[in-house]
Amino acid sequence: MKKIINDKDKIISQMLNGLQKANEDKVKINEELKIVYRKDLPIKGKVGLISGGGSGHEPAHAGYVGDGMLDCAICGEIFTSPTPDQVLEAIKLADSGEGVFMVIKNYTGDVMNFEMAKDMAEMEGINVDYIIVNDDVAVEDSTYTTGRRGIAGTIFVHKVLGAMARSGKSLEEMKAMAEKIVKNIKSMGMATKACINPISGKESFDLSEDDMEIGVGIHGEPGVKQEKIKTADEISKELLDHILGDYENLDGDFVLMVNGMGQTTEMELFIVNNFASDYLKERNINIKKTFLGNFMTSMDMAGFSLTLFKVDEEILKLLEENVDIVRG
Amino acid sequence: MKKIINDKDKIISQMLNGLQKANEDKVKINEELKIVYRKDLPIKGKVGLISGGGSGHEPAHAGYVGDGMLDCAICGEIFTSPTPDQVLEAIKLADSGEGVFMVIKNYTGDVMNFEMAKDMAEMEGINVDYIIVNDDVAVEDSTYTTGRRGIAGTIFVHKVLGAMARSGKSLEEMKAMAEKIVKNIKSMGMATKACINPISGKESFDLSEDDMEIGVGIHGEPGVKQEKIKTADEISKELLDHILGDYENLDGDFVLMVNGMGQTTEMELFIVNNFASDYLKERNINIKKTFLGNFMTSMDMAGFSLTLFKVDEEILKLLEENVDIVRG
Repeated sequence: MKKIINDKDKIISQMLNGLQKANEDKVKINEELKIVYRKDLPIKGKVGLISGGGSGHEPAHAGYVGDGMLDCAICGEIFTSPTPDQVLEAIKLADSGEGVFMVIKNYTGDVMNFEMAKDMAEMEGINVDYIIVNDDVAVEDSTYTTGRRGIAGTIFVHKVLGAMARSGKSLEEMKAMAEKIVKNIKSMGMATKACINPISGKESFDLSEDDMEIGVGIHGEPGVKQEKIKTADEISKELLDHILGDYENLDGDFVLMVNGMGQTTEMELFIVNNFASDYLKERNINIKKTFLGNFMTSMDMAGFSLTLFKVDEEILKLLEENVDIVRG
Repeated sequence: MKKIINDKDKIISQMLNGLQKANEDKVKINEELKIVYRKDLPIKGKVGLISGGGSGHEPAHAGYVGDGMLDCAICGEIFTSPTPDQVLEAIKLADSGEGVFMVIKNYTGDVMNFEMAKDMAEMEGINVDYIIVNDDVAVEDSTYTTGRRGIAGTIFVHKVLGAMARSGKSLEEMKAMAEKIVKNIKSMGMATKACINPISGKESFDLSEDDMEIGVGIHGEPGVKQEKIKTADEISKELLDHILGDYENLDGDFVLMVNGMGQTTEMELFIVNNFASDYLKERNINIKKTFLGNFMTSMDMAGFSLTLFKVDEEILKLLEENVDIVRG
């Protein structure tokens, strides 16, 4: 394993310190509890918005802290849920009296620990509500989840709710919007190479020389099948057919995300989008906006995921708002 | 080789089509001549700003087309200079009567073909000037250059000149600024893994299991030395010492770029910045702003480069201006 690191035990704290030092105008960190938070917290009159999970998915979630998106990101160890204590501290940091909304990816450990933190915060008089994002249509249950996994589509939830929170919407309004949008966000991924975990030095799963995994999770959990690698167009069609087949109806407007898993080049992502864009048009799917890049990675895994998000005019406007976040 | 592509002969055209389809509000392409250009060209009263080079460095340069940065990016085949005809067409697209400024990375083929295009354009009555960026302090001459190579620091030139062009500055004013800033931009890179060229299917250079290359170029050209991989802190110190040693004096303000070569994770880049930021402070280098991410890649090469840019207040302001570009 060749990784550009120092001490294995300090990976997360050095990462967070490095992130903070590149963004001193925007964020602070709690090094002990591994929280990245806006330096202007608490923000009077604004519902707090927080998210988090295991590290290794950068820029998710620390990269999305800033004006118009998250107030805090809670960073677990690599591919490991943060503890209730970590989440509780983030809730306290984000609360200005209007309550705190949590965006949780559907993994058993995350759900359990975020819910426990909610209970603890409520005992201290803080209103907390949350949404569980389960956008991955590949499998119904998985290695780490009951129900569908939460993957790259989570970023859309950050963005819509972040814009709402900034405009002064209430915890109840955010909850109602969250419930409405998660049903309309659907993703599916693939990988051609596992990531190498810097702690173990090992590949996160086995994949033979010519094979790819269809429906892979963001920790390398098994998906639908392993098979010989196909062309970009064939793979993209397969993922899109799965995703489209999951909608009850395909009327209205959509937003598309082409997400890189880490090692996959922009060159390849654009080649994917070249097909996806044409194919969706052919199927009469009206794409209003396309996001393309590394939004939710799995360290240096090679592969990509596609996400569709069925939107209305209000949601599209929220998605298009400018944000001032850490990322990039 | 497992790449997410279709036909090898269509990589660049499918990439550019995919980029355009993700950004229909911003750019058009000339598919035959492989040019990405702002859809609102020509812009009256504005000097045209163009750049380009071999493909495989995405988001450079097509990702920087848009308001406040480039008017056109000319995309050669992978790691191959664009032809004079391609550059000439970009000059014509960008010219609104105020002339066109070209940002050229110092590679023999690029310099020759951009200069030839300048001569051809001038015969058609278009004023053209240019700057050659040679920020790489690793080696004095290289496989593809006489003199120092142009690498990630080129993006700073795009950004400063892009802001100037938008504000209506003249070709002469841009040339004067370009000459002033290129002397103050200094970079150096390293790699732990070569990239795989999708055309040949082969690694771009050899590097044994435990080794890294210090001073590597963005095509995998040899640098200063190959040696056993060290810690992130040791590597960062070595690159920074080279870079700092190249400045005549270290007074004043600087901007830092931590650039990923492609496969290297944000986690690792932040760990690099954690050290770089502390070390520069220790050396009394005043860093006003840090850019961190994949700005100039070498496809899926693993590694990073560091760039320092000595700035004054005017330059810093230009660097901080908002842009509306394709990237991300």
